[in-house]
Amino acid sequence: MALTLSEIVAALGGQLHGDPAVTIAGLAPLESAGAGELAFLSNPKYRQQLAASQAACVIVGPAMQAAALARPAHGGACIVTPDPYLYFARLTQLWRRASGRGPKPGIHPSAVVDAEAIVDPTASIGPLCVVERGARIGAHTVLKSRVTVSEDCRIGARCLLHPGVVIGADGFGFAPNAGAWEKIEQLGAVSIGDDVEIGANTCIDRGALQDTVIEDGVKLDNLIQIGHNVRIGKHSALAGCSAVAGSATIGAHCTVGGAGMVLGHLTLADNVHISAASLATRSLLKPGQYSGVFPIDDNANWEKNAATLRQLHKLRDRLRALEKSNEQRLSEP
Amino acid sequence: MALTLSEIVAALGGQLHGDPAVTIAGLAPLESAGAGELAFLSNPKYRQQLAASQAACVIVGPAMQAAALARPAHGGACIVTPDPYLYFARLTQLWRRASGRGPKPGIHPSAVVDAEAIVDPTASIGPLCVVERGARIGAHTVLKSRVTVSEDCRIGARCLLHPGVVIGADGFGFAPNAGAWEKIEQLGAVSIGDDVEIGANTCIDRGALQDTVIEDGVKLDNLIQIGHNVRIGKHSALAGCSAVAGSATIGAHCTVGGAGMVLGHLTLADNVHISAASLATRSLLKPGQYSGVFPIDDNANWEKNAATLRQLHKLRDRLRALEKSNEQRLSEP
Amino acid sequence: MALTLSEIVAALGGQLHGDPAVTIAGLAPLESAGAGELAFLSNPKYRQQLAASQAACVIVGPAMQAAALARPAHGGACIVTPDPYLYFARLTQLWRRASGRGPKPGIHPSAVVDAEAIVDPTASIGPLCVVERGARIGAHTVLKSRVTVSEDCRIGARCLLHPGVVIGADGFGFAPNAGAWEKIEQLGAVSIGDDVEIGANTCIDRGALQDTVIEDGVKLDNLIQIGHNVRIGKHSALAGCSAVAGSATIGAHCTVGGAGMVLGHLTLADNVHISAASLATRSLLKPGQYSGVFPIDDNANWEKNAATLRQLHKLRDRLRALEKSNEQRLSEP
Repeated sequence: MALTLSEIVAALGGQLHGDPAVTIAGLAPLESAGAGELAFLSNPKYRQQLAASQAACVIVGPAMQAAALARPAHGGACIVTPDPYLYFARLTQLWRRASGRGPKPGIHPSAVVDAEAIVDPTASIGPLCVVERGARIGAHTVLKSRVTVSEDCRIGARCLLHPGVVIGADGFGFAPNAGAWEKIEQLGAVSIGDDVEIGANTCIDRGALQDTVIEDGVKLDNLIQIGHNVRIGKHSALAGCSAVAGSATIGAHCTVGGAGMVLGHLTLADNVHISAASLATRSLLKPGQYSGVFPIDDNANWEKNAATLRQLHKLRDRLRALEKSNEQRLSEP
Repeated sequence: MALTLSEIVAALGGQLHGDPAVTIAGLAPLESAGAGELAFLSNPKYRQQLAASQAACVIVGPAMQAAALARPAHGGACIVTPDPYLYFARLTQLWRRASGRGPKPGIHPSAVVDAEAIVDPTASIGPLCVVERGARIGAHTVLKSRVTVSEDCRIGARCLLHPGVVIGADGFGFAPNAGAWEKIEQLGAVSIGDDVEIGANTCIDRGALQDTVIEDGVKLDNLIQIGHNVRIGKHSALAGCSAVAGSATIGAHCTVGGAGMVLGHLTLADNVHISAASLATRSLLKPGQYSGVFPIDDNANWEKNAATLRQLHKLRDRLRALEKSNEQRLSEP
Repeated sequence: MALTLSEIVAALGGQLHGDPAVTIAGLAPLESAGAGELAFLSNPKYRQQLAASQAACVIVGPAMQAAALARPAHGGACIVTPDPYLYFARLTQLWRRASGRGPKPGIHPSAVVDAEAIVDPTASIGPLCVVERGARIGAHTVLKSRVTVSEDCRIGARCLLHPGVVIGADGFGFAPNAGAWEKIEQLGAVSIGDDVEIGANTCIDRGALQDTVIEDGVKLDNLIQIGHNVRIGKHSALAGCSAVAGSATIGAHCTVGGAGMVLGHLTLADNVHISAASLATRSLLKPGQYSGVFPIDDNANWEKNAATLRQLHKLRDRLRALEKSNEQRLSEP
């Protein structure tokens, strides 16, 4: 598997400086790339690595062009493009297509697809997947192995569902009944837009009465829990182990860091960003970054501070008392 | 799929005000229900929605009867019942039964069930499930798709296990041995009572020597981790992404919020409630609600407060010093 | 299933005090073991249980030998060994082997193994597993049921992968592109050493360009997320629901408690221990225990302290102001 630089710029554009006939055998990080490998520089803070890089060619932005050309190795071969990171993303896609390794359309013989499910002929249903009655799988969508899409759930076009994903299990709904729990059957389904990616073992529950909705372009990492009746707006991205509790609404272009969490029935505006391991306990209606994590420390310090934290309210009262005493003193003649 | 109001009250009781021949085509939330849909009002704080609701009929408690009858739409049609939320739960069950959509008894041909497993003939083992040697599945229990029940584990009657559930993987037990880990084979199993529901991709580990025990009526949401030797008491309910570490004992009628966690070897009394994302680090022997979460804030505020928190113990010392100095001043003549 | 004490010491060593012909029908905790059962005492804090134990025989260290011999039941029968916990671990292994219950080599007929995967003939591929093209499974490695090993991923020898494990799903990599996300194809794979155990539904993502690496002897519990390009050093152990974000490097002999988390691109030195539910937000280059958890409290106290915590930085400023005022007073004549 190899591509020449001329094949690459023919496919992806960019201004090539260097020999177009050079063959690229792989993509690699800037600091470890060797001859025959292509690297990229996006973040200016790694510019030091540029001069020393042994990469056959380097993808850079216009501001780095001079530095790239001055690189001793390979006569400073480089591809100049306005957004090197985006170029790199497209290059990985080109690379994968060229390797001929993509999923093939059709239903793997080991998959269990209900006769009343509707699967687009260009979709790929991998080994040991389950697609239940009334489910719909859109064009060019890929279910890797061991994915379940439950009754009546709809997946749009060009989606990618990784192994172990569960779409449309029952939402967690029970009415209390004399100390026990009476099940609320979950009569809604899940509706997933186009261009959505869902990571391994992630779960999206079906709605209680109406659908749980994942809009176009949303990206979900692994082991995420999406509760019933949730709506996630376009192009939002949630990192691994995050969770959104039932009936929460997340706007467009939001992000949730790893193990970040949104409580039920809350609303997050567009462009709200929740930091890793932080818990949104109230609606966040202004764009911005929100955090709430106890800072890590060596265990002995943490123990002392945590113990004191349990007295914090009383400390504030003591501080107030001192302030009052001080004010009195200052007002004394 | 439709039911008349008279069919509904015939099945579930309640006092119907309005035309029993009216046909209900679906259940819907109070604020969005249209003609032909049935809604309910349980929480008095939503009573404003009642007057405006276009629902064909509304399920209400006795205290709301007058308000329901005064509703302009559909002559104030309503069903009055002591517990509207419980009535609604039962209605969802009736609806699902009437739709004929429940699981069918028997073992799906794609499931792998060991010849030495015992599966009740009324149980339903869905596609691509694995039931290992010595496992027992009780009457009317449903394993949706891709569930694993490992060797010798027992599931009671009327349980519901969602896709991806793993019952009886090895508990996490190792003895340190010269810098490496020596495996402790997990010789116990898992014992699950009746009427237990287990959410998608949730894991319950087998015991080291004795069984991990989940008592009757327990409800577990998705992506939950239950360690070896744990016992969870009757009718406790754990929300998504929560975790109970090895050898912890949770009483009856407890709840754990999403991503809440109980450390190993702890005991929670009956009726203990752990808030979302809170970590029980000590046994909690008194009923009540327990919490421990860093409050979310905009990132700039959080950073300042978190940095100060790392000095909290020293702040307390400084406060004490001030208090002493102040006491001295006050005791001076 | 039973073993005599003489068979046990013949296999595992140790100094037997008591009748070697006694038959052991099971292993049990010290406090509940009955006649016919074997128990062990490792932690001296449980020595009180020793005198009262009804176990047929007790495994103890040299320091407990006298106390064990003085036990009234069964004439103080005991096995003395330098490390009773390690002895117990090996005994569980002996027990399991003797029960004949281990996995059998070979590929279960329901598994889907690509023709271009390489599976050692001594490996065991359980029901409904998926092993993709180019994957390699080492000698004596066991994939329980419903495990996915994706393209080109390598698993070493004597590994144990529990149900639902996903090795080699795509890492979470996207380049922003005009408000949407452009996929970065993940061209690396996953490389797992020897003697690694991986818990149920745990996910290890493939690298972006190079491999995600799990070194020899690592133990991962259930529902863990390992991001792309991560490296975990030898004999490190991570408890359930923990997560390691992309490109983090964890040294050898580290531990991460349940739901502990390491942010991306960080480095943990050898012998770093992260407490349960704590988030490593910076590299930790010194061995030791690190923690960061808001201490749990009854909800009313927590609410007060959490509210005050949001003002902590201002409290510190007020404290400073008081200190200054106090200093001024003290410096006054």
